[in-house]
Amino acid sequence: MNKRIIITINRQYGSGGRSVGKQLAEQLNIPCYDYNLIAMAAKESGFAMELFAESESSHTPPASNSLLFTLSSAANSDKALNDKLYNIQSSVVRDVAMQGSCVIMGRCSDYLLKDDPDCLNIFIYADNQSKIDRIVARRDVPKEQALDLAIRSDKRRAAYYNYYTDQKWGKLENYDVAINTGIVGVDGAVQTLAALVNGLDKD
Amino acid sequence: MNKRIIITINRQYGSGGRSVGKQLAEQLNIPCYDYNLIAMAAKESGFAMELFAESESSHTPPASNSLLFTLSSAANSDKALNDKLYNIQSSVVRDVAMQGSCVIMGRCSDYLLKDDPDCLNIFIYADNQSKIDRIVARRDVPKEQALDLAIRSDKRRAAYYNYYTDQKWGKLENYDVAINTGIVGVDGAVQTLAALVNGLDKD
Repeated sequence: MNKRIIITINRQYGSGGRSVGKQLAEQLNIPCYDYNLIAMAAKESGFAMELFAESESSHTPPASNSLLFTLSSAANSDKALNDKLYNIQSSVVRDVAMQGSCVIMGRCSDYLLKDDPDCLNIFIYADNQSKIDRIVARRDVPKEQALDLAIRSDKRRAAYYNYYTDQKWGKLENYDVAINTGIVGVDGAVQTLAALVNGLDKD
Repeated sequence: MNKRIIITINRQYGSGGRSVGKQLAEQLNIPCYDYNLIAMAAKESGFAMELFAESESSHTPPASNSLLFTLSSAANSDKALNDKLYNIQSSVVRDVAMQGSCVIMGRCSDYLLKDDPDCLNIFIYADNQSKIDRIVARRDVPKEQALDLAIRSDKRRAAYYNYYTDQKWGKLENYDVAINTGIVGVDGAVQTLAALVNGLDKD
């Protein structure tokens, strides 16, 4: 690529958004930062990778009458640690973006880089049936539980994002392009986004 | 095109969405239905074209303490006529969609054709500054009034759409692709959408 273009991807669970990001990065021959970003944050900070992953999960809003609610009260004492982990991870997001064109999956990267004029913020979503089909095909989850898993996962993503930003996860105005993979498929989304990025690269 | 693909386009005022629709139709060599759809509805029904346009405007939600509110109470008596005009227009939307691949601008076409598996629903939007620049460049509107014009126009579009459908205008889940022309420009949006449609046409 001639230009520096930082592509951030947020996605609904079961939409194939992770595959879209990975394949798009391959096609554009640029790095894709996903779990490896957590590994970098862990390496730099000395905190275990698992702590970063748990930090995201801890933002799941539990039902007030549930055991989780009781547990989450205890977890609130970890707020300071979660904030610290978020700040370390944010620093790594900014560092990799400084190094040149790349794809960054989630991790509030669209918000962290919102003043960067070279950012292209993408949202990948899908209709419920497509998500169910994808989840059942890829995970050991019964059909009737697949949608619930998707809803809970997206609630967790939204809670994490909304907590650390002043934006709402999944709201159109946060993104520059949004694609429903239920219609165009993962390959269609990759080809469409590659055409778009190549257009920007030529301008 | 080998397949029948019905492309519906909803757009924010000042986003260049109308140009996107027109140019996309030209590139794909398929008809684009916009004002001409109203002309067809007028011709078929015998009602004046102006009545159809006024019907859309009458759905602007006025402030309750305004003169418009008083006037709109009178306009409510035209509700039956508005519904009739909507039904005539809807019938024309369904007719043109039956004839084969095309682009249809607005007019609740995404909702009217929601059970049609060949529909691709697109939303074109832009950031405020891009909308202001576009409106000032194209219309005799002072810079400081451009955003207000955009907001009022979109409120009117939303009110009309929300009244006649059980969906919310501009909500991501109604669409298959959404593009911010502030980032990619009208040409970029056209090229991106053409790549996407050509991909669907090959499947």
